[in-house]
Amino acid sequence: MSTSPERATIVVSLPDAAKIAWWIDQLAPLLPGWTLRPADDPGDPEAVSYAVVWRPADGTFTPFPHLKAIVSLGAGIDHVLADRELPPGVPIIRTVGADLTQRMREYVALHVLRHHRQMPLIAANQRQQRWAQQVVPPATRRRVGVMGLGNLGASAAATLVGLGFETLGWARTPRPLEGVEVHAGPAGLASFLARCEILVCLLPLTPATENILDAALFARLPRGASLINAGRGPHLVEEDLLAALASGQLRHATLDVFRQEPLPQAHPFWHHPDITVTPHVASLIDPESGSRIVAANIQHFETHGEVADLADAARGY
Amino acid sequence: MSTSPERATIVVSLPDAAKIAWWIDQLAPLLPGWTLRPADDPGDPEAVSYAVVWRPADGTFTPFPHLKAIVSLGAGIDHVLADRELPPGVPIIRTVGADLTQRMREYVALHVLRHHRQMPLIAANQRQQRWAQQVVPPATRRRVGVMGLGNLGASAAATLVGLGFETLGWARTPRPLEGVEVHAGPAGLASFLARCEILVCLLPLTPATENILDAALFARLPRGASLINAGRGPHLVEEDLLAALASGQLRHATLDVFRQEPLPQAHPFWHHPDITVTPHVASLIDPESGSRIVAANIQHFETHGEVADLADAARGY
Ligand SMILES: NC(=O)c1ccc[n+]([C@@H]2O[C@H](COP(=O)([O-])OP(=O)(O)OC[C@H]3O[C@@H](n4cnc5c(N)ncnc54)[C@H](OP(=O)(O)O)[C@@H]3O)[C@@H](O)[C@H]2O)c1
Ligand SMILES: NC(=O)c1ccc[n+]([C@@H]2O[C@H](COP(=O)([O-])OP(=O)(O)OC[C@H]3O[C@@H](n4cnc5c(N)ncnc54)[C@H](OP(=O)(O)O)[C@@H]3O)[C@@H](O)[C@H]2O)c1
Repeated sequence: MSTSPERATIVVSLPDAAKIAWWIDQLAPLLPGWTLRPADDPGDPEAVSYAVVWRPADGTFTPFPHLKAIVSLGAGIDHVLADRELPPGVPIIRTVGADLTQRMREYVALHVLRHHRQMPLIAANQRQQRWAQQVVPPATRRRVGVMGLGNLGASAAATLVGLGFETLGWARTPRPLEGVEVHAGPAGLASFLARCEILVCLLPLTPATENILDAALFARLPRGASLINAGRGPHLVEEDLLAALASGQLRHATLDVFRQEPLPQAHPFWHHPDITVTPHVASLIDPESGSRIVAANIQHFETHGEVADLADAARGY
Repeated sequence: MSTSPERATIVVSLPDAAKIAWWIDQLAPLLPGWTLRPADDPGDPEAVSYAVVWRPADGTFTPFPHLKAIVSLGAGIDHVLADRELPPGVPIIRTVGADLTQRMREYVALHVLRHHRQMPLIAANQRQQRWAQQVVPPATRRRVGVMGLGNLGASAAATLVGLGFETLGWARTPRPLEGVEVHAGPAGLASFLARCEILVCLLPLTPATENILDAALFARLPRGASLINAGRGPHLVEEDLLAALASGQLRHATLDVFRQEPLPQAHPFWHHPDITVTPHVASLIDPESGSRIVAANIQHFETHGEVADLADAARGY
């Protein structure tokens, strides 16, 4: 049976109008008693209790005085906090879950193995019909570091441990993590970086992490290290990456996220021989399981006034 | 202290003379009391007790009447059995171990993930500056089959289970394998193939497995399946692969082994857009740990007349 909440409207906002319609279609049957509408055609703004959003435009939430929570269609909330008119104090619910975590650990395993086993070189050799065997160390003698040990980072690190890698991790706060050498905070960054032959960024974007992947950081890595950025585009200082690849300080980079997405046609990353571009697909929200998680989170929050995947807006993630 | 066996010569044979010298240098300090020599310059042939070989030429063993065992520098023994003058009844010791298994499970994880996450397509899109997001199922809904569940296949299958894949296996004989749906024998092949979206061959080369990757087998796979061959080149009927890729029955193949190695310059595989060529590096014997395993196996066989990694020449692997 459906309960009918008093303020029974949920608005949806995404940059792509077709996706708005799609999410409304998915969520409606899972949220009986609720009316789902596009945020720019909300009906009575007083009736709006929840806003489900990805990259909302500035001021998206301003018309809704009784907003109980904002739902981010993703693990990050940087795109919500970016709204300069964001109403203070409204809780932000992240969309995470087994499906997102599974996809991210696949992505990290794939791209770490790809660097570890020198696939960019092997592919270049194939293009030149070059048969060149190279002995690389086994994963048990390869050090991989994961920046960010949240939902996604901790699961990615555990996957790397399972594959046999010497695995390091870096987070804001220290914690034990099975098989992982954990470093923490600004004080722990240099010792962490000094050991990472392959570095994976799974940080959230906050004022403290913006531009963190810069020349100073690259200089602390062992020479010839590889970088995988599946966090957010603004973690990376793009010119510094190009310089580090040119000097040989970095060997290769795999980037899933960019300052501007889609990556502009004229961007030098597209044709750089030492950069692999993936189009923000490390962990796409699965249409089906994603809508189930969003609906369950809204229902739980409506009943209990809280939910496990609540972000901490003050902390920024 | 070293024991001095009566017939104290070990000969070494590899196609590449530089590698013969290298193996002799590695093994000599690990085998005190033994004389190590190239097989084509053995000194007194009556004194030769062991032959350590990779791809020996026909007749390599014929001069040695007192050979106690042949050591294959690899997991496969097909290259030894190929010798038409092979002395009957001489035990063949395989070189396997944690290092080889570790490398193979990395290779299988990498290339299965690469197909699963459509990296060939993503790379082609990058070359055309195309930003095209595609939602693929998570590994939990992707079926991968491993042919051959020996040392290497069983470990590769366990790694795929750890990554979340729906994992199937096929061997000569049935056995339970944690998390793996095992099919066995010729009677179990069709039901196995029908479910494999990604197929990995880790079979040994025997009369029963030669040419097993042919048009009839490809036709039993789901349409658009991918193939990874890290067994031996003669498992694959090359023309049948090209036809299956052309028809779309297969989407992509990753090949590590070939009928002729190095793969000839003029071979069509080099420039085929749907074939990834790796130069027989799935699991290269690590120089250091490999020589330790070979020396330990010889010493154990010399003392006990047996060793764990003995091949069964009648069975062919
Ligand atoms: N490319 C994609 O497809 C994709 C998909 C989903 C998410 N993402 C990105 O991945 C990010 C992480 O997601 P998640 O769910 O794992 O986040 P999360 O659970 O909030 O975890 C964030 C982690 O980063 C650490 N951290 C935050 N600020 C830090 C700082 N200043 N210094 C050091 N460590 C810091 C946190 O440390 P503590 O544990 O000490 O708090 C925590 O371990 C998201 O924010 C998003 O940007 C990308
Ligand atoms: N590319 C590389 O770098 C590389 C490196 C090393 C090895 N290899 C290849 O990998 C192969 C496997 O090595 P391994 O150490 O895992 O071998 P293994 O321990 O001897 O195992 C062979 C497996 O294949 C199965 N098998 C044999 N004949 C079969 C048949 N006719 N039908 C179905 N299953 C059959 C066996 O079944 P049962 O268990 O029922 O006996 C067994 O599970 C080697 O022979 C070599 O060709 C490649």
